[in-house]
Amino acid sequence: MSPHRAGERMTLMLSHSDRLFPADPEIRALARDLHASVRDAPLICPHGHTDPRWFADDAAFSDATSVFVTSDPYVLRLLHGHGVPLERLGVARQDDASIPAADARQGWACFAAHYHLFQGTPSRLWLDAVFAEIFDLEDELTSATADTFFERIGEALAKPEFRPRALFERFDISVLATTDSACDSLEHHTAIRRSGWAGRVVPTFRPDTALDPEHLDFRTELASLASMTGENTTSLSGYLRALQERRRAFAALGATASDHGHPTAATADLSAAEFSRLFDQALHGTLPPSGAELFRAQMLTEMARMSLDDGLVMQLHAGARRGYNTELVKRYGSARGETVPQRVDFVGGLKPLLDRFGHEPNFRIVLFTLDESVYARELAPLAGVFPSVWLGSPWWFHDSPEGMLRFRHEASETAGFYKYAGFVDDTRAFFSIPARHDVARRMDAAFLAHLVTLHRLTRNAAFDLMQQFASTLPQTAYRLNAR
Amino acid sequence: MSPHRAGERMTLMLSHSDRLFPADPEIRALARDLHASVRDAPLICPHGHTDPRWFADDAAFSDATSVFVTSDPYVLRLLHGHGVPLERLGVARQDDASIPAADARQGWACFAAHYHLFQGTPSRLWLDAVFAEIFDLEDELTSATADTFFERIGEALAKPEFRPRALFERFDISVLATTDSACDSLEHHTAIRRSGWAGRVVPTFRPDTALDPEHLDFRTELASLASMTGENTTSLSGYLRALQERRRAFAALGATASDHGHPTAATADLSAAEFSRLFDQALHGTLPPSGAELFRAQMLTEMARMSLDDGLVMQLHAGARRGYNTELVKRYGSARGETVPQRVDFVGGLKPLLDRFGHEPNFRIVLFTLDESVYARELAPLAGVFPSVWLGSPWWFHDSPEGMLRFRHEASETAGFYKYAGFVDDTRAFFSIPARHDVARRMDAAFLAHLVTLHRLTRNAAFDLMQQFASTLPQTAYRLNAR
Amino acid sequence: MSPHRAGERMTLMLSHSDRLFPADPEIRALARDLHASVRDAPLICPHGHTDPRWFADDAAFSDATSVFVTSDPYVLRLLHGHGVPLERLGVARQDDASIPAADARQGWACFAAHYHLFQGTPSRLWLDAVFAEIFDLEDELTSATADTFFERIGEALAKPEFRPRALFERFDISVLATTDSACDSLEHHTAIRRSGWAGRVVPTFRPDTALDPEHLDFRTELASLASMTGENTTSLSGYLRALQERRRAFAALGATASDHGHPTAATADLSAAEFSRLFDQALHGTLPPSGAELFRAQMLTEMARMSLDDGLVMQLHAGARRGYNTELVKRYGSARGETVPQRVDFVGGLKPLLDRFGHEPNFRIVLFTLDESVYARELAPLAGVFPSVWLGSPWWFHDSPEGMLRFRHEASETAGFYKYAGFVDDTRAFFSIPARHDVARRMDAAFLAHLVTLHRLTRNAAFDLMQQFASTLPQTAYRLNAR
Repeated sequence: MSPHRAGERMTLMLSHSDRLFPADPEIRALARDLHASVRDAPLICPHGHTDPRWFADDAAFSDATSVFVTSDPYVLRLLHGHGVPLERLGVARQDDASIPAADARQGWACFAAHYHLFQGTPSRLWLDAVFAEIFDLEDELTSATADTFFERIGEALAKPEFRPRALFERFDISVLATTDSACDSLEHHTAIRRSGWAGRVVPTFRPDTALDPEHLDFRTELASLASMTGENTTSLSGYLRALQERRRAFAALGATASDHGHPTAATADLSAAEFSRLFDQALHGTLPPSGAELFRAQMLTEMARMSLDDGLVMQLHAGARRGYNTELVKRYGSARGETVPQRVDFVGGLKPLLDRFGHEPNFRIVLFTLDESVYARELAPLAGVFPSVWLGSPWWFHDSPEGMLRFRHEASETAGFYKYAGFVDDTRAFFSIPARHDVARRMDAAFLAHLVTLHRLTRNAAFDLMQQFASTLPQTAYRLNAR
Repeated sequence: MSPHRAGERMTLMLSHSDRLFPADPEIRALARDLHASVRDAPLICPHGHTDPRWFADDAAFSDATSVFVTSDPYVLRLLHGHGVPLERLGVARQDDASIPAADARQGWACFAAHYHLFQGTPSRLWLDAVFAEIFDLEDELTSATADTFFERIGEALAKPEFRPRALFERFDISVLATTDSACDSLEHHTAIRRSGWAGRVVPTFRPDTALDPEHLDFRTELASLASMTGENTTSLSGYLRALQERRRAFAALGATASDHGHPTAATADLSAAEFSRLFDQALHGTLPPSGAELFRAQMLTEMARMSLDDGLVMQLHAGARRGYNTELVKRYGSARGETVPQRVDFVGGLKPLLDRFGHEPNFRIVLFTLDESVYARELAPLAGVFPSVWLGSPWWFHDSPEGMLRFRHEASETAGFYKYAGFVDDTRAFFSIPARHDVARRMDAAFLAHLVTLHRLTRNAAFDLMQQFASTLPQTAYRLNAR
Repeated sequence: MSPHRAGERMTLMLSHSDRLFPADPEIRALARDLHASVRDAPLICPHGHTDPRWFADDAAFSDATSVFVTSDPYVLRLLHGHGVPLERLGVARQDDASIPAADARQGWACFAAHYHLFQGTPSRLWLDAVFAEIFDLEDELTSATADTFFERIGEALAKPEFRPRALFERFDISVLATTDSACDSLEHHTAIRRSGWAGRVVPTFRPDTALDPEHLDFRTELASLASMTGENTTSLSGYLRALQERRRAFAALGATASDHGHPTAATADLSAAEFSRLFDQALHGTLPPSGAELFRAQMLTEMARMSLDDGLVMQLHAGARRGYNTELVKRYGSARGETVPQRVDFVGGLKPLLDRFGHEPNFRIVLFTLDESVYARELAPLAGVFPSVWLGSPWWFHDSPEGMLRFRHEASETAGFYKYAGFVDDTRAFFSIPARHDVARRMDAAFLAHLVTLHRLTRNAAFDLMQQFASTLPQTAYRLNAR
């Protein structure tokens, strides 16, 4: 641990050293000790959305607004939901060039004026921690303090120790996985490797566009696949070989996992003839929606099959209805908070895949959900009986103190603690990574301390589990030790 | 605040001053202070089912049994569920005139003998508070005390200060909305206005029968609409104009909202031709169930469209399967507790409506659910990104301490606190209104105090939110300041 | 209570006398008192899966592994989910005779080596209590202590006081219901009755195979029914009479209930012609899946009809997707943990049955679910208005501290406390029965103490409810006093 980092943390510890710990003195005291036991454990980040270019170029970040506001869909979403036009924050209108966007300082002022709307949200927890811990800004962000914040953050970002690589080291990140589409050139990952810098930044294979015949860019993606791999992707066998080849290229740059963002958890185990027929319809744009769903379903099973060979751990993020708020996308483009969750049937959906590969020793799938009703009813029972199934940490809307508690309360009794794949920060907000891990560790400490006071766990077991959650389980689940 | 009211409240405060506050001393002390800060704030009642005739006629209520037992579906429901024939409480049999109903005193005795069955229910919380606070009856209601209760309540009801208008003032109600069908004459609302009495009682436009081709009275309702408005309601355009005209009549008497009780949250955005075809089928009674669902869905979108002009805030209460217990209805008529909830898909259902009007500045919809699994998965994400969507308070079966806690725990992190439309008592039990608001305020205080002890909220923010919940947010959400 | 039992319990009480009680001193003190008030109440076990042969033969149990590992699907499930081949625990491979199974001591060593995986699960709570309370083994089970455990348990099992009848008496079981298929000979139940032993062990009529045309043994079962009853089960009327006859045979041996494990909660009320047509298709194996579902649905209604005559209380266990993990079944046979839950629609499913019989004075149905989202939305509202509907205790994956809390928090406000049919241990793990009831009583005490500190319940009411839960309600719900 770098001394700098310790100093930053200390500031925060002094001001809110017991934050997120229950009020009961017995539980709080134990939670404090449990948290302290992993407070400085290196951060393992096996799933997220940081930009590999940052670590390849190591250029300075520009200003507070682009770092904390216009690039954060959680922030944009809630402000839009309160009627704040995003152009006032600095987001360019896509639909009407005559409407000007605010500059960075104006955007920051608008953000600060509405910051109270984030009371009680995890975004505020993370942001307050970042301001205090990384920028020594312990006042509350309001209209009155907006300028001070903007300037102090701007000055800091200009310093060498706030460049991406320096922060990566200061954050004590032991591995950071990005998320990259099947046809990504991986040039930044290659550049990082060639630069000689020791930071471990690895890609993750996320081929959603290439697997989804309903995606507008599906056929373009197939053409790119063809040109990158030399395969004929207008034949099913060539298409599958091209994907296999891209997986290998990812693995060669350190990837240990693939990731799949699908609207449902449907999988399939079709006959070769039926699969081939669907592929042809997909190529010709004649698939009906049910056929597209079936094609995506079959492709999850194909990904599982390929993972038996290349060992990439499969992640499934199911239940996001992407692009739901079409007006938001029309005005400001995507990744502005336009997605909402929907109900998911994991038990029915995964059956074909699990029947086929659920007991293969080399197969592993980590499940994430936006439908919390499945924790106790579906995910924990599946992880509790299939050796290949692991539980991903609470995702997106549920990556929060309450969301984490619900996950622990609902999943632990049926799955035990040892099928949990560890916390993933899942973020493009690089500065918030330490704060996010700290929230997760504090909630783990609070939950385990609670169990100890109920005599449902011994103290020793609780301390052991803190280590498991912070280090052992994510390393195991994501095969991070097999570099 | 009237001195009388203060005295009544004091009695209750002495006996259970900490009720609903958590045991932890730190949380309890803060909850007490938070509650005290809004304890005497005037009651805002933007959605409920009191009878406007009460305030027009200002006649005395007759007896304890009709006020607290035979008119309360929550009470009847649970007693019926324990095998108590409702005629023993005084409800007349609709199916068999030979079975006599108990008189008021007998009905009260039967109620008292079964009062222990309400242990742990919100009905008991409200009733105990009403008995103690409004009637100075602090003993437990049992068979032994039944007569005393019946007589003391009867004596009180005969006094002038227990007449509806006096109670309205004593309860310190700043506005009370009733719920009225599209063809209601609104005569009582007119009479209230003409009487010169200062109490603000307003109607709410609830056109369910007029929008539902499956309702037995649909065609009768259309005929009434025609005769009230002079429109030809056998043409689609005349039907829509008639509804528009009725909305205006409601608004002219102070209505600021419409309300819609639909079995699902389905909305639609049909072509004019398809809509017209459905309307014709509805008129001729040839709509299949799926067509009726589609017609209701389209009509929600029409209501939204009309609200852009007249500014009525739209409320959607989705998920009640009305009349589920058919035997109960057959024996005793409706509003006896015969309704049960069912699952609801808000995300899928509302998409057509939100695509069309979700970003219109003048559009606002407040969502209520009987399916709590949607709080975190659907409602909070929708309210968190659509400026038009607000969260209604926990509804009906969930208007209870546990229900309120679940709502806060599950909705707050994603929606924040500022898209909450405030507590609505939603009741025909006029006497219970202060107790219901007090339960809500106590649960708010308990929840916010909990967040403060976790350092997830500052003390100042918690006090500010108490004011928001009790006053600012409901006034804003329901446009109550724009009289 | 036998002195022996008191001594055993004391040991446990000393080591963890406050286990499962909340940390808050006020709540904990009251929970302790509430628990003490029913700690020694006789155990009522109206639903479970113990083997009646045990009590007929009264033979010694053989060894720790067969008692606690290979016969317990909860244990096997979780170890399989962590990649432990069940043959290493001593389960024979069904698919490959060349793979040897471990002997009992080896199996126990494997179990002990993985025992930490059960941290936080209810299995561990029960097992730790059994080891300490019944076998005086208070150390932690690990590889280091495995041999000691194995030997000490083995020695104990050889003693007369560890025979089934002696344990039954020591556990102070007042009634124990087994679960038996429609064509079970009931020979063991007959033998128990004839033996003169006073222990009350009764059968439960569970005709799933005979009601399910999709079951592989459906037609065999019909043939058995025919030979046992002399009815012609190739005619619908004969089939129904045969079932009626078997129900009578069960009742004659003390059964007070039937039990139905169906994948969904669908019921039906078909015309005689349609029912007859389905039956013929079922006989000829030509029913499509939707027809099979409809046949099962109709048969639930038939069971309800028969219960009006014979008075057997109906239990419905809906939502288990049996045999989901097909590979596990292929390798090791069934009852190895292969079942997972799925979503269930009780409100829609039960409507035909409730419309028909929901208000019959002699009809009673106890509902169990693996889909917890229905507690507040469906089960509590149904139990709260239908006199025939009772709430079963949290089932299977939810028979745990957290599961019990969720049930109480979500069901109590709408259903009250008096439609709860009492805890059922639902287990084949005979030794764990006292521990399971003790967990339930502790959680009841913790929950009620919590309500008292919130002033939502008086102390007196809480003590009364403890008695109701432990004794009165299960006796009433299952008609156990009408021997």
